[in-house]
Amino acid sequence: MSKILRVNMTDLTARFEDVPEKYRLTGGRGLTSSITCDEVPPTCHPLGPNNKITFAVGIVAGTSAPTSGRISIGGKSPLTGTIKETNSGGMAGQKLARLGLKAIIVEGQPKEKGKLWLLKVDKAGAQLQPADGFTSKGLYETYPMLFKKFSDKVAIIGIGTSGERLMSMAGICVNDPENRPSRYAGRGGMGAVMGSKGLKAIILDDAGGPGVPIANKEAFDAGRKKLVAALREHDITKPGGALNTTGTATLINVIDEAGALPTRNFSDGRFEGANKISGETLKETCEKRGGVGMVGHSCSPGCIIKCSNVYPRPDGTEHVSVQEYESIWALGANCGIDSLDATGELIRLCNDYGVDTIEAGVTIGVAMEAGLAKFGDSQKAIELMHEIGQGTPLGHILGSGAAATASTFGVVRCPTVKGQAMPAYEPRPIKGIGIIYATSTMGADHTAGYTIAPEILDIGGSVDKLVAEKSALARHFLHATAYLFDSTGHCLFISFAVLDNPSGLEGVVEECNGVLGTSWTVDDVLRMGGDIVKKERAFNKAAGFTSVDDRLPEFMKYEKLPPHNVAFDVPDTELDKTHDS
Amino acid sequence: MSKILRVNMTDLTARFEDVPEKYRLTGGRGLTSSITCDEVPPTCHPLGPNNKITFAVGIVAGTSAPTSGRISIGGKSPLTGTIKETNSGGMAGQKLARLGLKAIIVEGQPKEKGKLWLLKVDKAGAQLQPADGFTSKGLYETYPMLFKKFSDKVAIIGIGTSGERLMSMAGICVNDPENRPSRYAGRGGMGAVMGSKGLKAIILDDAGGPGVPIANKEAFDAGRKKLVAALREHDITKPGGALNTTGTATLINVIDEAGALPTRNFSDGRFEGANKISGETLKETCEKRGGVGMVGHSCSPGCIIKCSNVYPRPDGTEHVSVQEYESIWALGANCGIDSLDATGELIRLCNDYGVDTIEAGVTIGVAMEAGLAKFGDSQKAIELMHEIGQGTPLGHILGSGAAATASTFGVVRCPTVKGQAMPAYEPRPIKGIGIIYATSTMGADHTAGYTIAPEILDIGGSVDKLVAEKSALARHFLHATAYLFDSTGHCLFISFAVLDNPSGLEGVVEECNGVLGTSWTVDDVLRMGGDIVKKERAFNKAAGFTSVDDRLPEFMKYEKLPPHNVAFDVPDTELDKTHDS
Repeated sequence: MSKILRVNMTDLTARFEDVPEKYRLTGGRGLTSSITCDEVPPTCHPLGPNNKITFAVGIVAGTSAPTSGRISIGGKSPLTGTIKETNSGGMAGQKLARLGLKAIIVEGQPKEKGKLWLLKVDKAGAQLQPADGFTSKGLYETYPMLFKKFSDKVAIIGIGTSGERLMSMAGICVNDPENRPSRYAGRGGMGAVMGSKGLKAIILDDAGGPGVPIANKEAFDAGRKKLVAALREHDITKPGGALNTTGTATLINVIDEAGALPTRNFSDGRFEGANKISGETLKETCEKRGGVGMVGHSCSPGCIIKCSNVYPRPDGTEHVSVQEYESIWALGANCGIDSLDATGELIRLCNDYGVDTIEAGVTIGVAMEAGLAKFGDSQKAIELMHEIGQGTPLGHILGSGAAATASTFGVVRCPTVKGQAMPAYEPRPIKGIGIIYATSTMGADHTAGYTIAPEILDIGGSVDKLVAEKSALARHFLHATAYLFDSTGHCLFISFAVLDNPSGLEGVVEECNGVLGTSWTVDDVLRMGGDIVKKERAFNKAAGFTSVDDRLPEFMKYEKLPPHNVAFDVPDTELDKTHDS
Repeated sequence: MSKILRVNMTDLTARFEDVPEKYRLTGGRGLTSSITCDEVPPTCHPLGPNNKITFAVGIVAGTSAPTSGRISIGGKSPLTGTIKETNSGGMAGQKLARLGLKAIIVEGQPKEKGKLWLLKVDKAGAQLQPADGFTSKGLYETYPMLFKKFSDKVAIIGIGTSGERLMSMAGICVNDPENRPSRYAGRGGMGAVMGSKGLKAIILDDAGGPGVPIANKEAFDAGRKKLVAALREHDITKPGGALNTTGTATLINVIDEAGALPTRNFSDGRFEGANKISGETLKETCEKRGGVGMVGHSCSPGCIIKCSNVYPRPDGTEHVSVQEYESIWALGANCGIDSLDATGELIRLCNDYGVDTIEAGVTIGVAMEAGLAKFGDSQKAIELMHEIGQGTPLGHILGSGAAATASTFGVVRCPTVKGQAMPAYEPRPIKGIGIIYATSTMGADHTAGYTIAPEILDIGGSVDKLVAEKSALARHFLHATAYLFDSTGHCLFISFAVLDNPSGLEGVVEECNGVLGTSWTVDDVLRMGGDIVKKERAFNKAAGFTSVDDRLPEFMKYEKLPPHNVAFDVPDTELDKTHDS
């Protein structure tokens, strides 16, 4: 029977609790959002004593389900003021699950201000110890020190100096299979919440842990096989498929071609340098330079898509892992930068300082619009990243994210929703993703409902990207995502396969039934996804959010974006229909 | 028949319009809020092309009504995101009225980004001219240059470098009778809105202007006499009374004695250095040092209270005008600073850079809590002010106000409501003013409803400051203020006299009847005040505000304030009753 670990940072205690019945049949985001709704006052200060941060495993985490094992991290976000769930690959989800834990809840705040702690969890229990000696450094220095201290078989969930400094773009880092500090629950500033709790890192040692019981092995195996088959068949997810060979950056040229690659702070939908930062160029560079460079890297054990990569320097030594689509776009096209070596260095700095690459790139774009650097000036962009790392006043501004930077410098063209930076899909020519950005419970977030699949990729059907009436489509994606991917522990990228293959979709549900002993149908799961969203919206409403917050920034309504020369013209009434079902 | 001047900064035109019937019988805040509600989309970006800024005179401005002539400036605030009206004494209100204008509406934005303009208005008309040569300088340098160019008989409404840089604590400056840049419509960052319109200054030359017609001279004179009599009788407002002899700073010792003088970023209600920055010490210093130092100075012609002052250096030369209660408190006690020479210098810098003294002082208090300076370190506080003046990154943070500074540095104890810094009355031991801060349409603002009168000063009755059930009291003050003071053009300080003297109150109403030819009663005026507040709340609701925003900061609910050791314990239900009538 799995447990919940509750850590109180005020009195520095850690105790194991039985999982309440109401939480037994959920996981991941379903669990973090439930706990946040049940235990966190919606109007509390996100960095104050009354917020809590929850780390939860998905339903199938720790099992042999393919491409699963993501860890969800939730609470009230200092970036958006909304409820927040952000999830990550890497090693933590599976180890946490195999330790027999469904979640860790961290509450309170240390009496000694600024003091930081490590939480070690293993089969013997949980203990807090001072983080002295492991703070105020880059994570490329800190993580190896922690592995040296605790063993290289542990998983580490940690924050960088940005989180220590309570910056709102601070993410939470999870080591990858080679123990790089490179996988991130990046969005929403949850690293600052962890920092506000005085928690530098959680160390998970699952050696000898109880593992994950499976109630109905037959159902589980049947489901797993269906999902594996679907993943192995689909052009996007199969071995040698698009994600496996060119990584997520395979999208750079696709979205640029669609006229929807946000360029130079969302002032153009096409980037003349797109091909230079494309997945194809990434693959070619890895091959040409040789050495450690590789595409088809796995971010988490048990993933059969393997879309990660290791980017080499010209001499073949390792520069950074990983150059993802979102990161390359944010720090590349959005800043007018057309070099993978430059985006690689910027991503490496994000990893080192512990910040979200999307928020960082959009923030630098806003800073460029404010005149702090010229678009395309990668050297200056790197200097701006160092300001964040050094914690200078300018670093604190940038570290607070795009909306804060825009506000501080009086920039009106600020591409955020509910304070969170938009990802790599321009909503003006892709109306459905615009509805997702506007109406997600988390601020602008493509992972809340990836309508890009039918709008651009002809996956799960095909719809005209310029059509505005997509509230029903958006609702379907928002609900499906909340449970199928975010609560099960599966990666969002299985969606490509399961959207096109009903058997794969059934497989995911059957895996859950196998683990939990339930007999859910696909419809049940969609309904439960809707329940999660409803719960999250109730939290946000109690925190003061209204339909006025479910809107894109004003400038996107009066400024037309080339090359389609369209503004965001989805009527407010259509936006409001999204949750009106 | 008075007119409205409409200035379009996009096509650089200025045209005079007839006053629509619906605006004929209002003025000041009643007019700015009506125009904002009618013409500004509530969800627009405050610094974008769709916001407008309106300068409006009160109903009796430009007449011989005593202590009137304030100018109201309104629009959507970049500091709070709410509707905003902020008003100022000085020379502008009366001159604008005597030019036959009820209001100037400024809309659009210059095509040439960063270009600044001067608007000259005289009896011949209105014209825009480039502000070249008058920008990027302190106002103590700029204002004399403008007077030299346009004559020393004009009134100037201008912004400092903070407004040029679109900082959210930028106020709007009006010259005093000796042409000092010293009177401010400070609150809510309207200086940034003026800056975003590309408008550096408005120059008003009323020579030969038509003046203000009075529909019923008999009624007006009768009213004026009643008000003059009331002001001359009351201990606070009479010649030789408290305001006249020790200025508004007469309150420092009173509020400190009440245990409600916010000290060191709202962590104590008593300041051990209070007497050193008190009105009594101010008076004594002026007398001892001699030279130009004086209390009993008049900020605006026709004021019979004369509560302003000119503070001298040790050698008797002029240091600054004016050391007001709010400014001395914000930059003094709230920063742990106990020297009038230090507050004088900080106020002078606020005037020079064009920022709101309340927001500046609370911001420096937050910065001190963040560790940027020690409480009490006036030299460092002065350096922080210079950062604002120099427009450094740190200056941009501070210039964005207390809430932005707290957020940028992760400070939880942030004494703001709706993003606006609290003034000089601790709401924990004075519950009524806390209800005003929470429920005002403008963010934390003592001038929205000065319940300090009955709660501390035994004026207009006497109520226990620690009693929580004061929604009805707050409502009465909010409504009365909106019309009686903010819309007539009278200074809030007539309230002391009219609260204690029904004849004085009738006098204000009769003055309005005299000017407008109406036959309003006191009840009519209270009702119309309620209508203004209702209209403003509708704007805020459409901008996304809810009852959740009508709250004090969370820390005041769980942190008890010495010496009374009370938290803010007014129930949310009581707060919500304020506007539920």
